[in-house]
Amino acid sequence: MTTDAKILKALRTASSSYVSGAELAASSQISRAAIWSRIEELRQLGYDIEASPHLGYRLKNSPDVLLGDDIISRIEKINIIGREINVFNQTTSTNDVVEKMAVDGVAEGVVVFAESQTKGRGRLGRMWHSPTGKGLWFSILLRPTLHPPTAMQLTIAAATSTRRAISRFTKTPAIIKWPNDIILNGKKVAGILNEISAEMDRIKYAILGIGINVNQETEDLPDELRNVATSIKIQTGQTINRCELVASILAELDSEYNKIKEGKFNTIADEWMQFCETIGKQVTIRVGGRIIQGRAESVDADGCLLVRKTHGHLERIVGGDVILEK
Amino acid sequence: MTTDAKILKALRTASSSYVSGAELAASSQISRAAIWSRIEELRQLGYDIEASPHLGYRLKNSPDVLLGDDIISRIEKINIIGREINVFNQTTSTNDVVEKMAVDGVAEGVVVFAESQTKGRGRLGRMWHSPTGKGLWFSILLRPTLHPPTAMQLTIAAATSTRRAISRFTKTPAIIKWPNDIILNGKKVAGILNEISAEMDRIKYAILGIGINVNQETEDLPDELRNVATSIKIQTGQTINRCELVASILAELDSEYNKIKEGKFNTIADEWMQFCETIGKQVTIRVGGRIIQGRAESVDADGCLLVRKTHGHLERIVGGDVILEK
Repeated sequence: MTTDAKILKALRTASSSYVSGAELAASSQISRAAIWSRIEELRQLGYDIEASPHLGYRLKNSPDVLLGDDIISRIEKINIIGREINVFNQTTSTNDVVEKMAVDGVAEGVVVFAESQTKGRGRLGRMWHSPTGKGLWFSILLRPTLHPPTAMQLTIAAATSTRRAISRFTKTPAIIKWPNDIILNGKKVAGILNEISAEMDRIKYAILGIGINVNQETEDLPDELRNVATSIKIQTGQTINRCELVASILAELDSEYNKIKEGKFNTIADEWMQFCETIGKQVTIRVGGRIIQGRAESVDADGCLLVRKTHGHLERIVGGDVILEK
Repeated sequence: MTTDAKILKALRTASSSYVSGAELAASSQISRAAIWSRIEELRQLGYDIEASPHLGYRLKNSPDVLLGDDIISRIEKINIIGREINVFNQTTSTNDVVEKMAVDGVAEGVVVFAESQTKGRGRLGRMWHSPTGKGLWFSILLRPTLHPPTAMQLTIAAATSTRRAISRFTKTPAIIKWPNDIILNGKKVAGILNEISAEMDRIKYAILGIGINVNQETEDLPDELRNVATSIKIQTGQTINRCELVASILAELDSEYNKIKEGKFNTIADEWMQFCETIGKQVTIRVGGRIIQGRAESVDADGCLLVRKTHGHLERIVGGDVILEK
């Protein structure tokens, strides 16, 4: 953890009370003068830190800026995901940045954020609208020891963690629409993109891309999306601190990833099914050029959707578009 | 096609007879003086080109150097594979080079060769011994519109094309050992590595890596491989022109890739099965930590091996190691 992350963590742990410069210096292993200069820099970034000669420092307010140290300071224990966090002002797509890192051999767990993306994308290369400063657009590099057919486990873990964290900030629980959407009051609030690089019998790396509409107002959404998309702010009326939300998602996902590593995907699948609106529904799904109709029954051990077709046969679907459900 | 490729093609098409400078100039659309200077450069590379004042030029002999223009000049018609050929003196692994090209958005069909690789690799990250100037180590970038579970179709097309081309240069036909080895007289002479980058429901790109032991002598093989590996030269006693062999493979594979694009994988699978020694055998296969025993019956429409287990159940295997067959 960097010094700034340690300072923010100490201030935040003290919550409403003060932390002395001596305590901060001891926990960060730098001088009190250095602490003072770090506090000044955090203030420049917008952190409202009160200094009292006798009591020490107190964090009154955090700005809504994406800062890796801030995110890290909010996570109690990082096992893999979030070991390194990079925030870019602008990228083509955070998945592109992480893909280049992956090819260069960077270790798993790195997370890349962008305040805005010029070529943000969803599934099948579809455009993902990602305006500056209002949302969370980030990608995570993983190197799981999974076979390629089980890669959907990662999508399901990401959807479960994201859904759970978002629901903590909203009155109504968010739900999941197979395969990769998070829905709030009937509209899409977040999406997951899972890209893998693999040999035939092992995954070399996976990149989980997550996009969340957080603080957009209705007028920030493109006209053509207003009927189908929403943001947390539009639904709750509240502005959310993005570092707080994403710290929560990363902590959840770190724990779910650990379950996958231990072969306990079934516990994730159980929660996923509980909150997946697609399960139990009559669905029409487009897979490439093919249309599949039937009742979505469950997900299997690989994370694939099992659809009971009208003549009784169970079809296993890796990915597709639900074009109708009732 | 570059000018050098056009010149080599014209000289080669004329076979034993001469091609006049005027004809070469016309077909290459450059001056006769420029033809003369190109011929000089080809001679520097080792091409034995005779010049007769009245008859013109005649190609007496080609050196065994890997030259993109030479390879292209030997292929009658290139649809996709071989549209661009790059030859490196040394790389870590040609798959690494092509992966970086793929991330940068290079179009499909590019082929990258290396005279030697410092980190040549086979399946599951295993080391592949690739000494200078004796073999063919190359990788092909493809962007097929296939779903990830059908990626094995590409491995099977590559194995079939490589086997067919090698057999044309040897007395005994080469055979295939599932999933990715080409065998000559019981020993491995070539291997295929298929790596893909994919979303859950589409392949973004595939990289076919092919390694062939061509002109190695027994003493060029590492001690520990001499019982299991061989080269075309060791088996036939003949030194093979590597450009000639690889031009044949690329032409075959270009045609097989076209079949896959047209949904005609079944014709490739039929030939593959005919020459696959694994089919019809009792096999013991290691898949990750699991052992599967049974009779290898066939490959399915996705290119996966179908093994009939002792209790009658048919298991579908994407990749693994055949550790015993009889």
